[in-house]
Amino acid sequence: MADIPVSHPRRASLLGRQRLVDAAKLGLLADSALIAHGRGEAFDYLLDERTCDSARTAIREVAARLQVAQHPVISVNGNTIVLAGKSLIRIAAILNCPLEVNIYYRTPERIEKLLALLKNLRQEISEELAPNQFSGDWKSAVESVNILGAISDGRILGLEGPRSLCSADGIESADVVLVPLEDGDRCEALIALGKQVLVIDLNPLSRTARQATVTIVDEVSRASSILFSYIVKEKSNPTDWDNDAVLKDALEVMSQSVNRI
Amino acid sequence: MADIPVSHPRRASLLGRQRLVDAAKLGLLADSALIAHGRGEAFDYLLDERTCDSARTAIREVAARLQVAQHPVISVNGNTIVLAGKSLIRIAAILNCPLEVNIYYRTPERIEKLLALLKNLRQEISEELAPNQFSGDWKSAVESVNILGAISDGRILGLEGPRSLCSADGIESADVVLVPLEDGDRCEALIALGKQVLVIDLNPLSRTARQATVTIVDEVSRASSILFSYIVKEKSNPTDWDNDAVLKDALEVMSQSVNRI
Repeated sequence: MADIPVSHPRRASLLGRQRLVDAAKLGLLADSALIAHGRGEAFDYLLDERTCDSARTAIREVAARLQVAQHPVISVNGNTIVLAGKSLIRIAAILNCPLEVNIYYRTPERIEKLLALLKNLRQEISEELAPNQFSGDWKSAVESVNILGAISDGRILGLEGPRSLCSADGIESADVVLVPLEDGDRCEALIALGKQVLVIDLNPLSRTARQATVTIVDEVSRASSILFSYIVKEKSNPTDWDNDAVLKDALEVMSQSVNRI
Repeated sequence: MADIPVSHPRRASLLGRQRLVDAAKLGLLADSALIAHGRGEAFDYLLDERTCDSARTAIREVAARLQVAQHPVISVNGNTIVLAGKSLIRIAAILNCPLEVNIYYRTPERIEKLLALLKNLRQEISEELAPNQFSGDWKSAVESVNILGAISDGRILGLEGPRSLCSADGIESADVVLVPLEDGDRCEALIALGKQVLVIDLNPLSRTARQATVTIVDEVSRASSILFSYIVKEKSNPTDWDNDAVLKDALEVMSQSVNRI
């Protein structure tokens, strides 16, 4: 898997897979994280590994809701950081919002490794050229992205045990949470607290996909990169959103794959 | 994940997942085996975790082709043994055919561990009561199942390197190979050698699913258990098989999941 030809039609998918396998070996991921990634690969296969039109509409809606939020937060787990960490840091820099490491199977070691990885990525990105449409000091915008998760001084009401832990300055006080690859129970609890929950989930039938305020049915690295391009380019307003419509559309697109035989 | 209530609607799937996670920790699986399992989970989710009618027809066809084969062989990898090893040993006992451990990412350590696991399972099954419909000495039928794979004295022509290795008494001399969860390249090579390749693959669009002689689009433990029940019960004859029809049907069933929203 190490040498994937540049011309390989599924190169992006195979590279993502390799990054996850490497991250698992480094102890960055939960035991079942690779299985979750594989589930995503299958749904993406049915989407022909392309961002469909309804997913683009959902990404635009997510951009708008993050832009008008009072206190937006981006909540990330291991898979998200490995696959889309860079794009999400760029988004946080533009929105001036914190990133919170918040993982379902919580161990201090993994939290620490993920925080270190995010800080390395933040350092890398602070040294990049500013995006074209960005007016301001890119380096200081990136450096001031607050990376939360080391201290769990907040709680997600409605959950028990380690899964209820969060940061008081992060998820606890957020009105809008962008949380790619979230678990169903936590999505439900955040919604019950009156927060807007914006998710990226390749399974249109998952509890998370169905409960979220806005669901982007797309692969997390593609979606995050497009989300960044929308957020850096323009400011738009949230609409009266019908989330079931995008879920149905994604399933329709997947069902078209029958024509590939 | 350890305590899954007996009433949980997705209990079988969650137990299978846990067995794979445990097997990975024991070094039984390749690095990307959990990802492959996750892909399967997603397709199975779309099948509502049920064996569809066209898959049952394919299982019946596979039973018939194994029953009339001159030299059938069952080729197994780590995921297959963990999920369906017991059913496949029972099938081998009835057909009096060998099981061959044949893995894509080959290391002597993994081969050895998988051979040991299979031998333990064979021992367990030899001590079970004989299946109802079986007339004969179950214990000696099971004990005489030949477990191949320790010695690679055969070759799969058309493949290079470690992936071409096989057993001379197994895959090399087989006319019909039942190989659940096969890789696309190897499936293609076996077909090119004129062998019948019978596969179990949850992705109806995979190269393996599309190239195989007969494809069972179903979860490997469910399919193997049904295959066993057909093989022990009755003898039937192969038909003039249209494999594209079952692939299309499986995709149709998956596309019905749109109605679950």
